[in-house]
Amino acid sequence: MINEKMFALGDEPSAIRVLFAYGLKRKAEIGADRVFDYSIGNPSVPAPPQVAEVAKRLLDSDPVALHGYTPSAGAPDVREAVASHISRRYDVSASASNVYLTHGAAAALAISIAAITVPDDEVIVISPYFPEYKTWIDQFQCTIVEVPAAQPSFQPDIEALAQAIGPKTSAVIINSPNNPVGAVYTKKSLDDLAALLTKKEEELGRQIYLISDEPYRLISYGAEIPWVPCIYPRTIVCNSFSKSLSLPGERIGYIYVADQMDNDAETSLAIAGAGRALGYICASVLFQRILKECIDLPSDVESYRENRKLLTEGLGALGYEYVEPDGAFYLWVKALEPDAKAFSERAKQFELLLVPSDSFGVTGWVRLSYCIAKDTIVNSMPAFKALMESYK
Amino acid sequence: MINEKMFALGDEPSAIRVLFAYGLKRKAEIGADRVFDYSIGNPSVPAPPQVAEVAKRLLDSDPVALHGYTPSAGAPDVREAVASHISRRYDVSASASNVYLTHGAAAALAISIAAITVPDDEVIVISPYFPEYKTWIDQFQCTIVEVPAAQPSFQPDIEALAQAIGPKTSAVIINSPNNPVGAVYTKKSLDDLAALLTKKEEELGRQIYLISDEPYRLISYGAEIPWVPCIYPRTIVCNSFSKSLSLPGERIGYIYVADQMDNDAETSLAIAGAGRALGYICASVLFQRILKECIDLPSDVESYRENRKLLTEGLGALGYEYVEPDGAFYLWVKALEPDAKAFSERAKQFELLLVPSDSFGVTGWVRLSYCIAKDTIVNSMPAFKALMESYK
Repeated sequence: MINEKMFALGDEPSAIRVLFAYGLKRKAEIGADRVFDYSIGNPSVPAPPQVAEVAKRLLDSDPVALHGYTPSAGAPDVREAVASHISRRYDVSASASNVYLTHGAAAALAISIAAITVPDDEVIVISPYFPEYKTWIDQFQCTIVEVPAAQPSFQPDIEALAQAIGPKTSAVIINSPNNPVGAVYTKKSLDDLAALLTKKEEELGRQIYLISDEPYRLISYGAEIPWVPCIYPRTIVCNSFSKSLSLPGERIGYIYVADQMDNDAETSLAIAGAGRALGYICASVLFQRILKECIDLPSDVESYRENRKLLTEGLGALGYEYVEPDGAFYLWVKALEPDAKAFSERAKQFELLLVPSDSFGVTGWVRLSYCIAKDTIVNSMPAFKALMESYK
Repeated sequence: MINEKMFALGDEPSAIRVLFAYGLKRKAEIGADRVFDYSIGNPSVPAPPQVAEVAKRLLDSDPVALHGYTPSAGAPDVREAVASHISRRYDVSASASNVYLTHGAAAALAISIAAITVPDDEVIVISPYFPEYKTWIDQFQCTIVEVPAAQPSFQPDIEALAQAIGPKTSAVIINSPNNPVGAVYTKKSLDDLAALLTKKEEELGRQIYLISDEPYRLISYGAEIPWVPCIYPRTIVCNSFSKSLSLPGERIGYIYVADQMDNDAETSLAIAGAGRALGYICASVLFQRILKECIDLPSDVESYRENRKLLTEGLGALGYEYVEPDGAFYLWVKALEPDAKAFSERAKQFELLLVPSDSFGVTGWVRLSYCIAKDTIVNSMPAFKALMESYK
């Protein structure tokens, strides 16, 4: 009498997680240096030293005050710090009351979807997309509507989106810089999308939210990354410091409801309610306080830029086809056979862990996370060569 | 077009949280020492010094390894440490595969309820009960069935439970030591409950889970606290270290699916699936690792015992009626008028913050959290005296 849907989700974890777990096991068997693990987005750049410094200083303070509950949305001064960071960085006026600190971006997304949908609503995603979007959309009894990205740019396909938006559409989720393809949405793409959503809101007489999932915002190789609330007012920003501060396992992120939104106060309350309904009490208070002091630290993009160069040049020389990434730390590589799962299985024989594209909503590709040690990339090239040769 | 249910939950936060927020504001206005805040279960005993020592040592290690993702259920060695702690302490054989580390007990409960119910199921709680049980039961579209505790013992009322259990019952939630009354369920009560559930499972031909919510397990003033899985095999234990290690804001806890259960593997998978569906990626990895080293530390019960004595003797001398607590750090006090909300409002005039019983499912009482500074208790006595006199 367990819940069969939950059982199914537990019994078949995400392909990324399955490969990540396989990688841990395989490394224990044959040694970490012999497994080329491109499975998960675990940053290879260390957290900035300030994180540990601030943490240690905090740990010397009164533990009762340090570790106590904060209000559900977060400590007021930390919310203020996030709002001020947003205001300064994007030249806007963000209110602390529209900031809700979360247990990472996954929580931010699940909470946001729960807050702004009712059962039977439709939520649009642009494929390829982060697989868990589907899990969360399903959980709140909504229907996922997959709209393929334009080719070969991987920008939003405005015409296809226009076809997909209907009376049940409550939200569109975008993710720029994009996981898994590394595309960065241009100002023009976002302007066009905003114009479409505004027109559709009017036509359909309903609110359509834009959920902007942006944990890779600080990881750009030069492309401008516009601040979405300035382009479309009904935007909910979901962010985390998993990638930018290299703290993925600590789960610290935030939801920001655009002040520009006509119903921002109501939306923020629905978000608070959804957090409560899903069992979130507050984000880890130690990491809230670390965030307050470290939020303005830059990301070490250079390291990822070098990895990107090494990997794309290496794979290019071997004849692999891939999408040049403008941001994030993923490379989208064409599988050498139509069945990406079979290709990923074959790659495992060469100790290459590549995530098949199927769970991202498309066939025939694999995702490589290149937030890994440079040596792993260099040492994996003979394996990629052998994999390529195995298809000849 | 936001979700109205979520909006309502956000617009009217739990009575405890509302009073807690009022207290923060009031303290800022008139000084912390002039507000007698009995609202929230924020432990007054500091986290043991080992927590900071272990944390600092960990923070000196490789940050990439330290802060990286763990598998969703937690780092394998930490799950092993929790299983071994359970095995040693309760003389059982607990498997790491049945331990799922959580973002605190609230997450543990929300995930457990999601895992073992389907919409329209009924979940039984024993009133007075922790108010958020209702929020989570509602969230998964189940019906809460409130069964009053036996009087005056506040033990489970087995006959009333027998009446309440029906073909839709998927679970009974118990909480011993109890929040809000401080009752500790006796071995006999649990034996009788287990016999009832076993009989009902057979009669009704369905599985009935016992969810044992036990964050106060280590805070007992002498009463024996039996290990529930040894009494009823279909038990899911939800625990946290918020109270026992004084880390409420850090959100670290676990779900343990009893190895004695005939469907423990399936249940554990459903729990993993539910965690995923609700947006939980993993518990904060720093606190997972702290837990591994600090799990066997004893709780400082003596401090709470002194508070209990001070408070019960003080209120007793003033003529207040209360339930003598055997565990946890809450005192259940009879309101001086039938309307507990009105009584709580009147108490605020004397700067006493007492949570009205209504959201715990009963009328006419207030809950006092006595996990506060001794001075606050001593200094609050004139206010309690004045409150009593205001009713004469």
